[in-house]
Amino acid sequence: MSVESYMQSVGQQARTASRAMARAETEQKNKALLAMAEAVASKRDELMQANEEDLQRGRSNGLDAAMLDRLALTPARIDNMIEGLRQVASLPDPVGEISDMAYRPSGIQIGKMRVPLGVIGIIYESRPNVTMEAASLCLKSGNAAILRGGSEAIASNQALAACIRHGLQVAGLPAEAVQVIETTDRAAVGYLITMPEFVDVIVPRGGKGLIERISREARVPVIKHLDGICHVYIDSEADLTKAINIAINAKTHRYGTCNTMETLLVDGMVADVVLPQLAERYHELGVELRGCSRTCAILGDIQAATEEDWSTEYLAPVLAIRIVDGLDQAMDHINTYSSQHTDAIVTENYSKARRFLREVDSSSVMVNASTRFADGFEYGLGAEIGISTDKIHARGPVGLEGLTSQKYIVLGDGQIRR
Amino acid sequence: MSVESYMQSVGQQARTASRAMARAETEQKNKALLAMAEAVASKRDELMQANEEDLQRGRSNGLDAAMLDRLALTPARIDNMIEGLRQVASLPDPVGEISDMAYRPSGIQIGKMRVPLGVIGIIYESRPNVTMEAASLCLKSGNAAILRGGSEAIASNQALAACIRHGLQVAGLPAEAVQVIETTDRAAVGYLITMPEFVDVIVPRGGKGLIERISREARVPVIKHLDGICHVYIDSEADLTKAINIAINAKTHRYGTCNTMETLLVDGMVADVVLPQLAERYHELGVELRGCSRTCAILGDIQAATEEDWSTEYLAPVLAIRIVDGLDQAMDHINTYSSQHTDAIVTENYSKARRFLREVDSSSVMVNASTRFADGFEYGLGAEIGISTDKIHARGPVGLEGLTSQKYIVLGDGQIRR
Repeated sequence: MSVESYMQSVGQQARTASRAMARAETEQKNKALLAMAEAVASKRDELMQANEEDLQRGRSNGLDAAMLDRLALTPARIDNMIEGLRQVASLPDPVGEISDMAYRPSGIQIGKMRVPLGVIGIIYESRPNVTMEAASLCLKSGNAAILRGGSEAIASNQALAACIRHGLQVAGLPAEAVQVIETTDRAAVGYLITMPEFVDVIVPRGGKGLIERISREARVPVIKHLDGICHVYIDSEADLTKAINIAINAKTHRYGTCNTMETLLVDGMVADVVLPQLAERYHELGVELRGCSRTCAILGDIQAATEEDWSTEYLAPVLAIRIVDGLDQAMDHINTYSSQHTDAIVTENYSKARRFLREVDSSSVMVNASTRFADGFEYGLGAEIGISTDKIHARGPVGLEGLTSQKYIVLGDGQIRR
Repeated sequence: MSVESYMQSVGQQARTASRAMARAETEQKNKALLAMAEAVASKRDELMQANEEDLQRGRSNGLDAAMLDRLALTPARIDNMIEGLRQVASLPDPVGEISDMAYRPSGIQIGKMRVPLGVIGIIYESRPNVTMEAASLCLKSGNAAILRGGSEAIASNQALAACIRHGLQVAGLPAEAVQVIETTDRAAVGYLITMPEFVDVIVPRGGKGLIERISREARVPVIKHLDGICHVYIDSEADLTKAINIAINAKTHRYGTCNTMETLLVDGMVADVVLPQLAERYHELGVELRGCSRTCAILGDIQAATEEDWSTEYLAPVLAIRIVDGLDQAMDHINTYSSQHTDAIVTENYSKARRFLREVDSSSVMVNASTRFADGFEYGLGAEIGISTDKIHARGPVGLEGLTSQKYIVLGDGQIRR
């Protein structure tokens, strides 16, 4: 069978399964999730073995240490996977929720019902735990899923697919509700993103290159997250203790995450006071600083930032710093260079906080909190399939609700239009 | 200037204007809308004259009567335009609305704020009143708009553009907040739909061919409405008076609208009783019937429906009729042939109504009401930019809210992530 006809048949089966999933009862979906968790627990050895196969192939193909680390299924990661499945089972079911029912002058009663999107295609790289995460969120939100993980993880993903199928079967749900692509042929991705008749939305997870390519070539809507160039702006009326704590936490809590601060903006009125204290802390923590000319004048021995620094997602212990004069300059900088992921202001001034919240056009806008909070778990979504930097459908952390939409429902008593 | 650089500059100006629009006060936006209404009222003669120019060119280019009718700005249509602007001014402003604020265990308070999408591109055909409708909805929802109407209406649209600019100016809003494309070069559309850096969403309004082409070629998200193949299912437990009223109204209230019923499904248990009565009414009203073999057996002298009839949007006094055995067969037919626009069941049975509402995957699902109610005004949205048959972002009638999205806002007191 050609890759094209394989993908067509996967798509067709997903579309059919999506109908059954849309009407599946909450109890049934939870049963499937818990059975998957049990299957993972009882097949721990097989999973580790399959993963070892992937790791050996990876080593002989010369994968680097970071890639091998992401590929590895450790006992702790398997525990997390089991725990994750149980957590998703315990989340409220968003499907079927009815809201805003109201009567109209015509006598009809109108409102909205939350419904699954249908078939979701997830394209990701070599982390096998994403397979289970994506499967569980699509399943709980009543969608069918087509999962395409990195070819490096093919054996691990197929072993996980067996656990998923087992769970679906135990609950009496169609085995095609979650399909893990069996071919490592790269052409499969091309077909997956160009089948609007079978796939309703694509969620790519991975590097910027992958996501840009998919967005460019997709013929179905994409919920995407490009980069996270996040800012913290320390206002002239900031509480400086809060400012320092937040600026340190937003940069150094973790370096490789998309909600890590990459550029610090400091109001000229407080730069003299706050920057030397911050520089000392960053220095202790091993963070390299790159500053605008005014920052360099205050801090002396740091590298000058270039235009490129303002639009770089370092994902590393490097921080760009710019001194600005007031809120408007800070927001101009943010609206120019931010990737519209997460931006924060530190201020005690009510009106400036209010303006920042309204005027900064990012998926998460914060006052006096670390950008590191931009996360589905921290926001109380219970889980997250990704963080959207798009503007339509879903912005920010995407949980179960982001995998659904709302249709209109109309209840009448024989009404006709006059 | 080439069309490409013209469109680039339009895009760039729209992006800049969108920032000012996002923070524009409600009062300011309403002032602009009312000033536009006054400008239209006071320039009635100029508008009619510009429209006459379009009509004369249209006649000499051999446009058909229907097209000329859509192109014409009659005094009544100008009155409607003025009334429409005033109505949009009176609608509540969706921008800035904050919802779901809740505290998290970390101490941060998190919720959502409704925000404009940014820049909206609207592509439509030769009806000049769409220019004002689209401009007013984008403006009120805090977006910048780029409007591209059919070349047949260029003089009318430019005359309307002057009224729009006047209104923006009076309110102190940037003139580039609503730009009406000045070139009739078709290449302009191609550029408009491939500038993700300047345009956040495209709303095409027009025939299926136009919309399919735009969806295929667009590099930005499209909120689209393809066709309206709407169904009414008369269940075995329908109140037959309601059933007949709804079936007649859904087909004959207007033939050319997307929420008009195109296929009637009747349960085999009641077909003998209900079909002859309906056929008589349809016959009086001049509706041509095409039936499945069982329908033909009951009604005798009607044409047999072919497979093609089930997926045809007639937009004409033609109706396809099929007899089905029970709810499941009816929903199978709908989920196979419906364009997911609007589908209705007529029944007095609670459980069947409940299943139909949940399991039919259309943007509007109705019980005991005419499909003709699927409309922004009837639903209380106040206005409508179109009806979406998409599944992500917005389904069904799209009003002001559909031209916005929600960002997360986080209020803290110095919280950092542990």
